[in-house]
Amino acid sequence: MTMSKGFKYGLAGLAAAAVLCAAPVMAQETEAPAYALAADTAYIFNTLLFLIGGFLVMWMAAGFAMLEAGLVRSKNVSMQLLKNIALYSVAGLLYWLIGYKLMYVGVDGGFIGSFGPYSFDPVGGDALDTGYSTASDWFYQMVFCATAASVVSGTLAERIRLWPFMIFTVFLTGLFYPITGSWQWGGGWLSVQGFSDFAGSTLVHSVGGWAALSGALILGARKGKYGAGGEINPMPGSSMPLATLGTFILWLGWFGFNGASQLAMGTISDVTDISRIFANTNLAAAAGVVVAMLLTQLIYKKVDVTMALNGALAGLVAITAEPLAPSVPVAIFVGGVGAAIVVFAVPLLDKLKIDDVVGAIPVHLLAGIWGTFIVPLSNADTSYGVQLLGIVAVGIFTFVASGILWFVLKATVGIRASEEEEEMGMDKAEIGVEAYPEFSRG
Amino acid sequence: MTMSKGFKYGLAGLAAAAVLCAAPVMAQETEAPAYALAADTAYIFNTLLFLIGGFLVMWMAAGFAMLEAGLVRSKNVSMQLLKNIALYSVAGLLYWLIGYKLMYVGVDGGFIGSFGPYSFDPVGGDALDTGYSTASDWFYQMVFCATAASVVSGTLAERIRLWPFMIFTVFLTGLFYPITGSWQWGGGWLSVQGFSDFAGSTLVHSVGGWAALSGALILGARKGKYGAGGEINPMPGSSMPLATLGTFILWLGWFGFNGASQLAMGTISDVTDISRIFANTNLAAAAGVVVAMLLTQLIYKKVDVTMALNGALAGLVAITAEPLAPSVPVAIFVGGVGAAIVVFAVPLLDKLKIDDVVGAIPVHLLAGIWGTFIVPLSNADTSYGVQLLGIVAVGIFTFVASGILWFVLKATVGIRASEEEEEMGMDKAEIGVEAYPEFSRG
Amino acid sequence: MTMSKGFKYGLAGLAAAAVLCAAPVMAQETEAPAYALAADTAYIFNTLLFLIGGFLVMWMAAGFAMLEAGLVRSKNVSMQLLKNIALYSVAGLLYWLIGYKLMYVGVDGGFIGSFGPYSFDPVGGDALDTGYSTASDWFYQMVFCATAASVVSGTLAERIRLWPFMIFTVFLTGLFYPITGSWQWGGGWLSVQGFSDFAGSTLVHSVGGWAALSGALILGARKGKYGAGGEINPMPGSSMPLATLGTFILWLGWFGFNGASQLAMGTISDVTDISRIFANTNLAAAAGVVVAMLLTQLIYKKVDVTMALNGALAGLVAITAEPLAPSVPVAIFVGGVGAAIVVFAVPLLDKLKIDDVVGAIPVHLLAGIWGTFIVPLSNADTSYGVQLLGIVAVGIFTFVASGILWFVLKATVGIRASEEEEEMGMDKAEIGVEAYPEFSRG
Repeated sequence: MTMSKGFKYGLAGLAAAAVLCAAPVMAQETEAPAYALAADTAYIFNTLLFLIGGFLVMWMAAGFAMLEAGLVRSKNVSMQLLKNIALYSVAGLLYWLIGYKLMYVGVDGGFIGSFGPYSFDPVGGDALDTGYSTASDWFYQMVFCATAASVVSGTLAERIRLWPFMIFTVFLTGLFYPITGSWQWGGGWLSVQGFSDFAGSTLVHSVGGWAALSGALILGARKGKYGAGGEINPMPGSSMPLATLGTFILWLGWFGFNGASQLAMGTISDVTDISRIFANTNLAAAAGVVVAMLLTQLIYKKVDVTMALNGALAGLVAITAEPLAPSVPVAIFVGGVGAAIVVFAVPLLDKLKIDDVVGAIPVHLLAGIWGTFIVPLSNADTSYGVQLLGIVAVGIFTFVASGILWFVLKATVGIRASEEEEEMGMDKAEIGVEAYPEFSRG
Repeated sequence: MTMSKGFKYGLAGLAAAAVLCAAPVMAQETEAPAYALAADTAYIFNTLLFLIGGFLVMWMAAGFAMLEAGLVRSKNVSMQLLKNIALYSVAGLLYWLIGYKLMYVGVDGGFIGSFGPYSFDPVGGDALDTGYSTASDWFYQMVFCATAASVVSGTLAERIRLWPFMIFTVFLTGLFYPITGSWQWGGGWLSVQGFSDFAGSTLVHSVGGWAALSGALILGARKGKYGAGGEINPMPGSSMPLATLGTFILWLGWFGFNGASQLAMGTISDVTDISRIFANTNLAAAAGVVVAMLLTQLIYKKVDVTMALNGALAGLVAITAEPLAPSVPVAIFVGGVGAAIVVFAVPLLDKLKIDDVVGAIPVHLLAGIWGTFIVPLSNADTSYGVQLLGIVAVGIFTFVASGILWFVLKATVGIRASEEEEEMGMDKAEIGVEAYPEFSRG
Repeated sequence: MTMSKGFKYGLAGLAAAAVLCAAPVMAQETEAPAYALAADTAYIFNTLLFLIGGFLVMWMAAGFAMLEAGLVRSKNVSMQLLKNIALYSVAGLLYWLIGYKLMYVGVDGGFIGSFGPYSFDPVGGDALDTGYSTASDWFYQMVFCATAASVVSGTLAERIRLWPFMIFTVFLTGLFYPITGSWQWGGGWLSVQGFSDFAGSTLVHSVGGWAALSGALILGARKGKYGAGGEINPMPGSSMPLATLGTFILWLGWFGFNGASQLAMGTISDVTDISRIFANTNLAAAAGVVVAMLLTQLIYKKVDVTMALNGALAGLVAITAEPLAPSVPVAIFVGGVGAAIVVFAVPLLDKLKIDDVVGAIPVHLLAGIWGTFIVPLSNADTSYGVQLLGIVAVGIFTFVASGILWFVLKATVGIRASEEEEEMGMDKAEIGVEAYPEFSRG
């Protein structure tokens, strides 16, 4: 960060541009100004989009951590925090080691890419073919992979052991997510069919949701959650401010999630589309909040703040499959229905005794399915049949692969804390650091 | 987010630019590079400014939520969180449905724009007339509208009922804020007079402050806040970390609030001005913190952390009316005086028995008036008289319109929780979700 | 934010560009499009990089505040929050008043720059020489200065008095940090030697660490921390969610810290390098988390969440000296070793009875030394000898200068709270505002 270095770089940049640009002009006029090359400018804008979008989606990892820390009981908060920062870290390492190439390199209409770690552009690289820096693209795709893993963490909270969860995360981020991702975004068989999932209602959120569902079924409900007589015991989260903060973080990050999925910002057309995506994304989430508030007021006579938060998230998940094409009323419709699904699905899951601690299955899986299915309403290039095909294919693969892995983990290392550990809380059992050591419990 | 799509878009962008640019050059030389069009580049930079500024100001909604959650008592925290995410959602929907066109379309020197929902540029739009994408502009203006509504929420905390507050928010964001906004930013009568309010000390912060003041007067103080013998009972906020986090979020968001109010980033001159605004904004806030610390140390012999936070916010509000023109010493002066006003106004409001739970009236209304009034000190194109005219005109309209609405709501649905509900806390009374269910109260 | 103003600016920008660009083309063809000047575009990109990088690093001030608020006991939380917002404010004011010019103006291979406040580009400035706006550069460098001061705050928590700490901050941000900074980034003697510290492992983090170490030695440990019989009494932090939030904020901000230290974004080469930096920075932090988790599991049989957080930070600090040149495996190695150093250094410091409340000395000083030393592994233009020279020179200056100041403060105003105040907590003693007034202590 030396000034002299800045000076050097600055001048180098200008000089390089000048040399490149001035050539044809110099011939006719010696004092002519040097113009910016269109390809250079587009490359910088595209790469900048990935970097900004990437740091916004990275920030969603903090959003999941806060949301989940707020929705679990205080005796399990440290565990939840640790799992979230750990899964983000593992996702980064695995997505570099094998995930990215598995998803994007050499898929060619098939079912899987190639194996091996990914190499970025060299220092001072000036490759133009891609239209953006490869490292920026990797960074952006990596944070998506981490998002899918984040979804799983919340559902299984309060009873899963740390290391089996980490092993699952290794497979999910290094193998399962990249494989289904390759089918569509890697140019695989599903994209050949004409499936459409703009920013990942299915490929990211539902993938996380299917993995969470299979885990919840195999892991079982928390002790005491469902009584013998069919009663459902509420286990309220320890901190609404953290849950709300997490939701706001996710909402903010979603502008990067959906907006930068345009993948290019170097033309008027692209940046205008990104703007539409920002507006639609925001309005779908807003509709989700309002619908969840109205429905819970009507049904329960009180407005449930956690439902309002999940309504926002459901709206966001639902619009993610197609945030560009819809008119505003359609975006509001898509987001609002997503929230309604969550309001009705949360008690339904409890009736089925599927214990989803933070509501991730309704939000990410069900609203993700809804958002993906409804794409043809606004995007004429798609069909309901192919959308269903994609939803089902990705769902079956992820559910089965995850289920097998959960079974293997259960049969070998074990995935569930003992009853005593669960009672004591995962923080004392496995972390040794209480989240709020000074605050007594009411 | 398909690679093939990225490839397509990337190449399409380059190709489009190439076609547009290469024409005049090709005639003379076949291998000539294609240059970027100045109008395209400026359009992308301008739109990007709105998008970045917009997500930063959107983030301020989280800042208000955290600030207010930290400054109310724990029995009212869930309510405060819900109100903040709900008002941000309602602001988005209403500002699309009627607010934006009311504020910006067809004002023509008058008092109001036109009615109806707003339409964004079509997908793949390439309109150039505006110099930026219309959806990006809408998004940026929308988050400002939400900010005005956020101000009201804190003042009326701990005793207002949820749904009347939401109805008020509908009118504020859909009607009141856009109308006074149209007078100035929409090119209405006030802008014709030569009023100046760069980023909204008056049009955003004071509008929120006037609406809050009228509400506080009609709603009355919290039960037990002011004793019969004139004593003032402190009701300390439940979490200083949340209040501090909220302040930092607001400070961060303010770079978008003031910086992107430059409205253009496509020229050296514009981006240089944005940089000045960043620096001045930061230094005004910094001065606010230091002044509040020194004054509270001198007056109370201890430094009040909530006052330091409000000092930062007062500095930010004060510099908002003119963050570009001031030299650094003037920026420090404007911010520092803003904080001093808050230090003296907070106890004064208590003497007047105006119960402002979070100090929003001193911070947003009084520092906003100060910042707007003092603009001519650094901006020679303005006059103190016209600045006063704007302050008074916007103040009367907002205070009266808000007051009428509060009265109507009070006379019809009722705006205040019962004594029992207030005692119990709004979370149990109306939300049904406690903020910290496991922590006993001291 | 008037529309008419936007219109004006937008058109002005386009018109200006058109006038500048069209000249040579017009001669030959009347309807020729106007091209963007390469120098203008690079200037805008460079300045935008400083603004985005700057607000990301500004956000790190909130990260330190949350991290420290989470790692101290609840009776000292308000104090910690206040110190963090106060030091960020003071850093801004001092770095404008004297710091920036001391660091960057007129160093010329020497040991110090010139004195006096810094002036930004005028309103509407269009200076081109620098390649970026001076105010954006000041803003970016200022937030680095604040970061160094943030490091000190955590180590000395729970027993230092407020105002002596503020006086120390004035000297650190106005004098000590800029002086050593001038040696390298200001083009001083150390940069002449060939020292390399890309984004400040030594110049920012170790400077903060040395100042913290000298303070810890002179201030002494907290009462009761180290027993007479050699036992070490754990004093666990009050909130793991806040500590985790702080870590995520710092991780996010680090993309600005390291990425924007490239100092230019106007060429393909620069933006490609920034992308590499993002990826390497993220992977070094991820490696830090995983290494800290594995080591604490192996050593303590439980995973310590605070160690995982500090592992992430150590990875970030370590990669900061050279985030561009390393291949991914080297970046993972650098970050992982940084975390290992922290895992072993934390108990070592306790054995030496150096009471570092938040672990800032291992994280910022030791991992900073490691990262700086190992630069030659990936950067062939550097040597281990010169890297050691820089580490030692900066260390001696900062340790001695800080030590003298701490001694003077101790001998005059006093730096340490009384035993009663320490027992009572700094919040009651000096702030008068408790952080969590409603929550009883367990």
